[in-house]
Amino acid sequence: MSNSPSKIEPLSRVFRDSFQVREIARRFGTPVYVYSEELLEEQADEALAFIEAPSFKVRYAMKANPNANILRLFQRKGIEIDASSGDEARRAIAAGIPPGNILLTSQIIPQEFIDLIRQGVNYNACSLHQLETFARFSNFIGTRDISVRINPGRGSGGTKRTNTGGPSSSFGIWHEDLVKVMDFIRRYSLNLRRVHTHIGSGSDPEVFKKTCRMSLDIVARFLYGGFPVTTLNLGGGYKVGRMSYQESVDMQEVGSFVKKQFEDFQRKIGLPLRLEIEPGTFLVANAGAIVSEIKDIKRTPRYTFLITDTGMNEVARPTLYAAQHPITVVTRRDKNPFKKTGEYVVSGRCCESGDILTPSKDSPEELQPRVLRQAEISDLVVIGGTGAYCSGMPIAGYNSYPAAPEVLLRKDGSMDLIRERGTLKQLTQNEVKVI
Amino acid sequence: MSNSPSKIEPLSRVFRDSFQVREIARRFGTPVYVYSEELLEEQADEALAFIEAPSFKVRYAMKANPNANILRLFQRKGIEIDASSGDEARRAIAAGIPPGNILLTSQIIPQEFIDLIRQGVNYNACSLHQLETFARFSNFIGTRDISVRINPGRGSGGTKRTNTGGPSSSFGIWHEDLVKVMDFIRRYSLNLRRVHTHIGSGSDPEVFKKTCRMSLDIVARFLYGGFPVTTLNLGGGYKVGRMSYQESVDMQEVGSFVKKQFEDFQRKIGLPLRLEIEPGTFLVANAGAIVSEIKDIKRTPRYTFLITDTGMNEVARPTLYAAQHPITVVTRRDKNPFKKTGEYVVSGRCCESGDILTPSKDSPEELQPRVLRQAEISDLVVIGGTGAYCSGMPIAGYNSYPAAPEVLLRKDGSMDLIRERGTLKQLTQNEVKVI
Repeated sequence: MSNSPSKIEPLSRVFRDSFQVREIARRFGTPVYVYSEELLEEQADEALAFIEAPSFKVRYAMKANPNANILRLFQRKGIEIDASSGDEARRAIAAGIPPGNILLTSQIIPQEFIDLIRQGVNYNACSLHQLETFARFSNFIGTRDISVRINPGRGSGGTKRTNTGGPSSSFGIWHEDLVKVMDFIRRYSLNLRRVHTHIGSGSDPEVFKKTCRMSLDIVARFLYGGFPVTTLNLGGGYKVGRMSYQESVDMQEVGSFVKKQFEDFQRKIGLPLRLEIEPGTFLVANAGAIVSEIKDIKRTPRYTFLITDTGMNEVARPTLYAAQHPITVVTRRDKNPFKKTGEYVVSGRCCESGDILTPSKDSPEELQPRVLRQAEISDLVVIGGTGAYCSGMPIAGYNSYPAAPEVLLRKDGSMDLIRERGTLKQLTQNEVKVI
Repeated sequence: MSNSPSKIEPLSRVFRDSFQVREIARRFGTPVYVYSEELLEEQADEALAFIEAPSFKVRYAMKANPNANILRLFQRKGIEIDASSGDEARRAIAAGIPPGNILLTSQIIPQEFIDLIRQGVNYNACSLHQLETFARFSNFIGTRDISVRINPGRGSGGTKRTNTGGPSSSFGIWHEDLVKVMDFIRRYSLNLRRVHTHIGSGSDPEVFKKTCRMSLDIVARFLYGGFPVTTLNLGGGYKVGRMSYQESVDMQEVGSFVKKQFEDFQRKIGLPLRLEIEPGTFLVANAGAIVSEIKDIKRTPRYTFLITDTGMNEVARPTLYAAQHPITVVTRRDKNPFKKTGEYVVSGRCCESGDILTPSKDSPEELQPRVLRQAEISDLVVIGGTGAYCSGMPIAGYNSYPAAPEVLLRKDGSMDLIRERGTLKQLTQNEVKVI
């Protein structure tokens, strides 16, 4: 696999062909998010096949893309929900997800947590304070079943700031505090049912395997302590390559490793243990793309810039952490039969120098021109790999651009609008005139 | 001035005292944006005093904070508008700003540009394509008066991605294309009225001075070519220190330099030239703060984390580019009379490892604990310097947290809600059920 930016990325698999891209732009305008029902289902099936065990459960990390239609699509597949906030849990319930199918794992305790748990939402305590608050209110809540998120002391992110495990991460209860957790659970007569150890995104399968072993050790310590843990949730972090030179995690390989670990563990312990995983990116990233229009082409002695009508408003990842997304030029007509190419820096529409879709992957502060099919103003560009952490994590309303709509390409070939284009009026709907 | 993170930052000047911070949290909940009318007016006065000349004009770069009340506050001061998109121009008009007070400088031509210009909005062409489009429609538009944004070949940003001038920037028409611009203006009988050269934020005053000279040279070339330019707009880029160890631009020093340059130029040319500037950050950054609550405190062997109920949702700047904001702990009661301190990493509420309010300024991927007043859960934290590029550039709705409200502290001591807290329902208001 070539690591060279000189390779033209193929059109996102979301689309049948360029004609479909043009039709979407005509019908829905640009910029527009597009998702493929077929690819979403394909990824769901692959995640569900991670290990073969009747008690195995997949939870969709809904922060990756919280559109209610996507939540329901996964629900139909038998996938449950990982909610990162009380608002996410409420949003899932409003979308029709049964509260019992939701596990709430939040950095802060939602104000409405008692009500949510009473409705049936499963609560995953992520700190000693959360555990204590749950205990204090357990009489009102009506359940003593609890789950705890443990920071196993190791993460998989590349840097301190991108780590969700290890001493530089605030996620979960530090693993050396297990005795405190046990004292607590005993003192308040809670029932520990689940141990949770999300170790972060972008993970190396080897790190994942190592964390799997560490997580099983934590479960073992609870079991030896007399706490009947029934479930281990390994969180997310199943990397998918968005660019053709990036590798995706081999779910089957990781799955069979995890399965073996679980089987060995159960044999040793003599008790069954249920496995849960919480993929987000894996389920939706490559099932989504953005269709945008080239609004201008500008040249300096150093670069040729394609100015698109998308950018950080719809896809913050390149601006946030120099993420690489495949970009494909779709000409308005097939006027370029010889497939000439050019080297382009692709820019967003905002009056913001960081609104760049082609940062250098090695040095996030630098620009990295891409070889693309030769482009003209009013040609389209497709930004691939934008199903996850794009419409759900927008730099919204910046430069007062309203939110882009979302379209679902159905398996029967039809196109359904699943979110209408936002309006300028919505950006000011909460303003109150005092001056 | 000390550059040390061990210095406790004083409470943002937005507030009279800690009592006021507590009162705001009680009345409006947390997180909440708070702005000081007095400081906004103070900054407006200072910008208006940049140079003493009857024709001098300040335009507010409204993308910094587009709340209609803030636009109107500045309008009352005699400050006009810099709009970065057609939507911003429409938003300003909806707020009651006369269209003739708006200069539209956008990376892409808004669909509604003809209508906007017909209403009286001033149009600043930022590319040859924009110039051509304007020319093509000038009969419909009813005016041939045009402004052009030139990239003078030099910028002030620290890196390629943060530069708004120079060969790595797509902003404006490359300065070596001036002959093309002239041919074009002649061919289409346009009237060039204004030259615009925004060179970027965070500027060194020396770079600003140099660009001022380069900009005047560009004006001179147009004048010698027979184009009666009447106005030079130098854009924005007036740095303000948010942390006590950061320096703010000395507007008077830069102003007197610019004034002298302008006077020399007018003497040489024998024609008057109007000056415009477009501050954003300068007008609002330090007039705003966020009040947030500490929801949890977590410890690993390396760090103590304060988990707040704000973060990247409300203030994306630390996550986006490791921006440093002053953070002050306000205890719920004055229970800590001896002012003990602690070293804390301050974290946001999102399930996202990058949601950190205290990144290292030298190495954006690292955490940098701050010395703060000793904190307990349910104490408040104030994030200062958040009046600019915060409520207008949010990573909105991520983890499904609704938008925080905005409060204006009036000069008479009263508190006015100028934007209500968003709701979960608003996050899904455009969704269409198809699954």
